[in-house]
Formats: sequence, C-alpha cells, structure tokens
Amino acid sequence: MALIVQKFGGTSVGSVERIEAVAEKLKKFREAGDDLVVVVSAMSGETNRLIELAKQVMEQPDPRELDVMVSTGEQVTIGLLAMALKKRGVPAVSYTGNQVRILTDSAHTKARIQKIDDERIRADLAEGKVVVVAGFQGVDENGSITTLGRGGSDTTGVALAAALKADECQIYTDVDGVYTTDPRVVPAARRLEKITFEEMLEMASLGSKVLQIRSVEFAGKYNVPLRVLHSFKEGPGTLITLDDEESMEQPIISGIAFNRDEAKLTVRGVPDIPGVAFKILGPVSAANIEVDMIVQNVSQDGTTDFTFTVHRNDYNNALEILKKTAGEIGARETIGDTKIAKVSIVGVGMRSHAGVASKMFEALAKESINIQLISTSEIKVSVVIEEKYLELAVRALHTAFELDSPVQAG
Amino acid sequence: MALIVQKFGGTSVGSVERIEAVAEKLKKFREAGDDLVVVVSAMSGETNRLIELAKQVMEQPDPRELDVMVSTGEQVTIGLLAMALKKRGVPAVSYTGNQVRILTDSAHTKARIQKIDDERIRADLAEGKVVVVAGFQGVDENGSITTLGRGGSDTTGVALAAALKADECQIYTDVDGVYTTDPRVVPAARRLEKITFEEMLEMASLGSKVLQIRSVEFAGKYNVPLRVLHSFKEGPGTLITLDDEESMEQPIISGIAFNRDEAKLTVRGVPDIPGVAFKILGPVSAANIEVDMIVQNVSQDGTTDFTFTVHRNDYNNALEILKKTAGEIGARETIGDTKIAKVSIVGVGMRSHAGVASKMFEALAKESINIQLISTSEIKVSVVIEEKYLELAVRALHTAFELDSPVQAG
Repeated sequence: MALIVQKFGGTSVGSVERIEAVAEKLKKFREAGDDLVVVVSAMSGETNRLIELAKQVMEQPDPRELDVMVSTGEQVTIGLLAMALKKRGVPAVSYTGNQVRILTDSAHTKARIQKIDDERIRADLAEGKVVVVAGFQGVDENGSITTLGRGGSDTTGVALAAALKADECQIYTDVDGVYTTDPRVVPAARRLEKITFEEMLEMASLGSKVLQIRSVEFAGKYNVPLRVLHSFKEGPGTLITLDDEESMEQPIISGIAFNRDEAKLTVRGVPDIPGVAFKILGPVSAANIEVDMIVQNVSQDGTTDFTFTVHRNDYNNALEILKKTAGEIGARETIGDTKIAKVSIVGVGMRSHAGVASKMFEALAKESINIQLISTSEIKVSVVIEEKYLELAVRALHTAFELDSPVQAG
Repeated sequence: MALIVQKFGGTSVGSVERIEAVAEKLKKFREAGDDLVVVVSAMSGETNRLIELAKQVMEQPDPRELDVMVSTGEQVTIGLLAMALKKRGVPAVSYTGNQVRILTDSAHTKARIQKIDDERIRADLAEGKVVVVAGFQGVDENGSITTLGRGGSDTTGVALAAALKADECQIYTDVDGVYTTDPRVVPAARRLEKITFEEMLEMASLGSKVLQIRSVEFAGKYNVPLRVLHSFKEGPGTLITLDDEESMEQPIISGIAFNRDEAKLTVRGVPDIPGVAFKILGPVSAANIEVDMIVQNVSQDGTTDFTFTVHRNDYNNALEILKKTAGEIGARETIGDTKIAKVSIVGVGMRSHAGVASKMFEALAKESINIQLISTSEIKVSVVIEEKYLELAVRALHTAFELDSPVQAG
C-alpha cells in the first residue's frame, strides 16, 4: 500500500464533468489500496476571473486582499471534488491551505511554504479517507491567507508529499509526460521514462512548461519522486527522480529545450577594466530586468564585447538603460537583436562524456546554422542562433543525439 | 466616538460599483470619527451560483463540503470591499469567519454561533482600521468551515455587535426601515421610528422579511440596539430596541403582519381524551413538518375539533399523515384548506390595553370578513381568514388602529 500525493491542475478540474472523471479515477486508485492526498487547482478560468474582479476595484490589487479573494478558487474545487468522491462512496474530506495547515511566509501572492502540519492528514488517511487539499494557498503566522503564485499548486503537491514522506507525487497535466523536445517541432520526439531533477530543472527553465520550476526544486531538495502524467489518458508518464547511477546505460542527452522569448544586447568596445561588468548589469537589474545568458569574450586592444540576453518584453527598456551606461563607461556602441532563439541540449550524461558540445556544434554546422552565443553548465549546453533556424536546429540536434523515436509521436 | 457594526447584504454589494458606493459611505462614517466593523454578504446571486454548482455534483450536497464552497462567496466580497477602502486611503483589513474567529457548533449549513474572539478586531480598531468581516460563516472546534444558513449575515452582525459591545448594529437593506405593514398592500403604511425586539420578532415571523428572525432574537438577548436602514438612501431608518417604558405615549399597535404561506388542517370529531393532541401532532412533527397555529375548541358530546396550520408546501404531506392518524384514533373526518391567510396585529401596547382583540374583530366584521381561527399571544392577535379578503382586512385594520400615514408612502 503506497501513499501517493496527486495534483490535478485547473484544466483537469475545469468542469463538473471533469471533476467527476477525476473522482472516478481516484476511486480506482483507492480500490487498488493506495492512500491518497489530492491537491487541486481552481477550475480553469476562475483565478483569472477573480483577479479581473479585483482589478475592477484596484488596478494594482492590495496583495493581502487579493490572496483572500483568489484563494476562493481552489476552495470551491476541493468542496466539489470531496462531494464527487462521497457520492461514489469514497470517504473524503477537504481542507483549505489554512486548515491543513500550510504555513508560509507573508509574501502575499508569492509566498513560500515553511512548514506543513501533517498530523490531521495522517489521522484522516488512517481512517481511510481521501484527503483533498486546496493547492496554491497557505496561511502566514498571523493567520492571513497567502498564495504561492502561479503554478503554486504543483509546489503544494510536492511540499505535501515531502511532509508526508509520500512514495510518489503525481502531477496530472494535459500532456502524457516529459518529451525529449516539443513534439510540435519534432514529430519524432519521444516521451522520457525517467529524467533527473537537475535535467528537469534545465528543461523547465528553458521553456518546457510541463512543471513549475519551484516544484521541481522542492522535489529535488526533499527527494520526492515526481511523476508527470496525463489526467485522462492511461500511461506511465515520466518519472523525475535523483540521478540513478545504477542504470546501465544512460543517454548522453535527455532532451532538447528551446526558447524564443529572449532578446540579445551587446555593448561593443567596452574598456576591459575591473568592475565594468557590474557597471553594465547593475542598472539593468536595478530596473528589475532579469538577465539570462551573460557572455564576455577575451579582450582585444584593451576593449571587449559584453553580451547578455533578457526577456523580449524587457528588450526596449534594457536597451535604453544600456545606451546610457555605454556613454558613461566610454563603450563604442550598443546593439541588440530580438530575432534570436536559444537552443539547449540537456543531460546528466554529458558530465562523463567529452565532446558533447562539439557534437552539437557539428550538427548545427552541417545545417549551416551560425552560432551567435554559447553558454554551458555542467549538464547543459546552450546556443543562441537566428530565430528562423530554430526548428531546423532542434530537429538536427534531436537526430544527432539519437533521440528520435522509432515510431513517430502522434 | 461610537463603535458601530454595519451589515450590508448581497444586493448592497451586488456589483463592483455598489461595493465602491459602500466604501464611499464607510469613508464618511470613518471621517465622522466612528469605529467601524463591517459585515458583508456574498454578492447577490453568488451563493445561489455556488449551490447550483454543488448540486450538479450531488443532488443533496454534503453539508460540510457545501459550507466549504458556499463560504467563498463572502470571502470574495470582503477582499473587494477592503480593497475599495484602501484605495480611498481608509486603512482596512478583511477577515473570514474562521479568521475572526467566529466559533459555531458543527451543524453545517445552519450552524449557531457560540463564541467570538474580539481581541484581534479590537487591536485593529485601535489602529484605526475598518474591520471587514465575512458574514454568514464561522468555524467549528475542529476547524471545519460552517455557515449559519440563509440570512446568517444579519446574525453575524448582531453577534459581533454583542461581542464588541457596540453602540449600534446597523443593518443596511433595500428598504428604508420597518413599516406598519407592507406598503404594497397599504399605501398609507408608515415607517416606524422605533419598535421593540418582541414586536419585531412577531412582525418578522409573520412575514415581514426585513430582518432574519434569529438576528432579532440574538439582538434582544444581548440587548444590541439594531437599526434597519436603506443602503443607498439617507434616513434614520427604524431602531429596534428594548421596550422603552419611558416613552410617553405608545401606540397600542405597532404594525400589522400577514402571511399567505400557510394552509389549515382540521380533524373533526376527535375523541376528547388525554394524549390525543400528541397522537395527532406527533406523526406530523416526526415528518419534519413545522406547525404554526394550533387551535382546539371545547368539546361537545365527548368529541372535539382539532385544527392547525402548516406551510403550504407541507400541506399535502400533512394531510396524508393526518388521514392515517384520524383512522387510528377514530376521528370523524379530516378536512383542509390552502386558500387561507393569516393577519396579525402586533404591539407591546396591547399588554396594558383591554379590548384590542375585540376592536380587531369589529373592524373585520364591518367588512363582513369571517374569522376562521383565532390565536393570541401577549403582544399579538392573529386571525385566519379566507385568502381573498387579505388586502381588505389589512387595510381595514391599519385604519382602525390609526396607523395610516397622513402622507401616503411612495
């Protein structure tokens, strides 16, 4: 008998019919003997409806009061799901984040979980009840309702699984697992049986939006086996775990992530003196612009070129700041480009295999794709290329690293 | 500086515009120096929407889970109103029933308030905050969310006023006070400046639906001055207080209540022996049918007639039960009538005035209205008449007891 935490997102509980289908699914799990804690999101559209309502009153809604309102979305879902279970003769009980109690800090709308009381849940499980918990929400030490920010229900699921030392945390979604890359770009993309937390983090942060990054971090930190599954289709999904060193042969690369949300900015002819990188990036981060890749080449004639990428939405703002800085530090010129894409190969296997990067560059060269920037981490190599070559690059790399499925994905 | 608890119902907070208008009103009260605790209902229609949603899953929704869902209605309103206040520079904080904390028993969907922690509210008031509390809801000692049943927000308001020893509990509604009778039936009906708790209870239970009965009982028990006011029109409303013996001259009758929701059932030729009333009413109340008036006349030839009234919705059910009972106890026949109406005169003044009942009967006789049943209490005389004479009877009594306004109500 296993203890499983399952999380169903807004689409999976988007209508009464779907909630009934989820209840039906849970009943089967229960009959198979598993102990179940189920985390649910608000019915799809509900959170946005509540935020819109709040904005009618206050353009920048007061965070504490916004949390009071928005948290009602999940509260409705837990009531409905608990009823759907009881109707089927499955004992069930619902809890809000406050009732569980999921203690968070007081950072309203983006609170972080600090502690979960598992006593009450354990007692309910011992009585054979399915425990239905509102995702995305908690309570601070003053008793104020907090929310964890978008996608926070995943985090609730993982945190509960960690607190209860559950055997697995299953995240039900509208995809049947994590793929080697986006099947819309590469029809031969394969579902991965297994992926490590680290790889998943790299994949997620690079634009594979299956799981919320924070929940993967959390799962990795507490070593909670995480499984991504389709809400309404059968299948084993993808298991996300620690690096399993025992597995006989590991593929060098687990997947290919990409991202066309970034823009590139370069300051040319920067005097190569200590502190100049801070002078360039300081004003950018002071403007709350997040910087992703940062590349600086070796200097030539006492000057260097300094390049970084930001989200495309921040491009104009960043460029303006940069031009001002360039003048101040005596740089030659400031240029930028929004028509770029980032492609990354990800895999823990590359730690022990030399030549992964060169194999990547070779595959791109074969297609005459020029590499504009390169950045590497222990389990990832990222390149920035011209946006129009994105699909071609991803397909070429997918084949080069032998990720193509023998049977093409539907 | 007074401490006022104000309650705004679903219509008063039925849209963002109305919530803004309420906030504007509260701002003025605050500027006048009053300390404010504001109780709000769900936006009109919201509670029904949630109940309908629940019924889609479970025809008879599980009471605990229904409370979890339905309580979200008020939770959205408190967030919106607190924001609308903050936007106006009025410090405010919202609380759910659980947060306040309004401790109730565990009778889900019809819980009763047992205790209110006033500490937190007092601290907020001391900081100059307007405290916005979700009406209609509480929490039981297990931490489960409860609701007080329809109209429960009035009760929340009164209970808070009692706990805080507030100077007044103001109930804002869509009428500008309590009237001598329904102005739709008697255009000359007058708004009462003042009415006692007892009178209000009789008026309310007889069909004047301005206030929820429980809230009036509660206010009477804890002597909380209660004022009924219009949400968006200026005016003093009607004050409901203890019987003020000092007032120089009290009208004999404060108002005329009526009700066409009842039906009459009679068992004829009942053997007049001890225990027969219980034999007749026992099975009726066992079927959860509430009985209102009960009249039994002196017996003749060892048998008597036994009459009682029930809600019209229960008529068929009650008649069936009664026929069975009549057979068992050897009664002659069972008859009933749904085309009846109950008219009552209410007033604490009648305690010290003889002849009030006879004046009532005289006024009805003048209009040739036959009285079918009579029932009296210390401050009320009720008669059952044929339904078609209802309006005529109410107007005749209104004039006979000198309640007519010199200027006709709009």
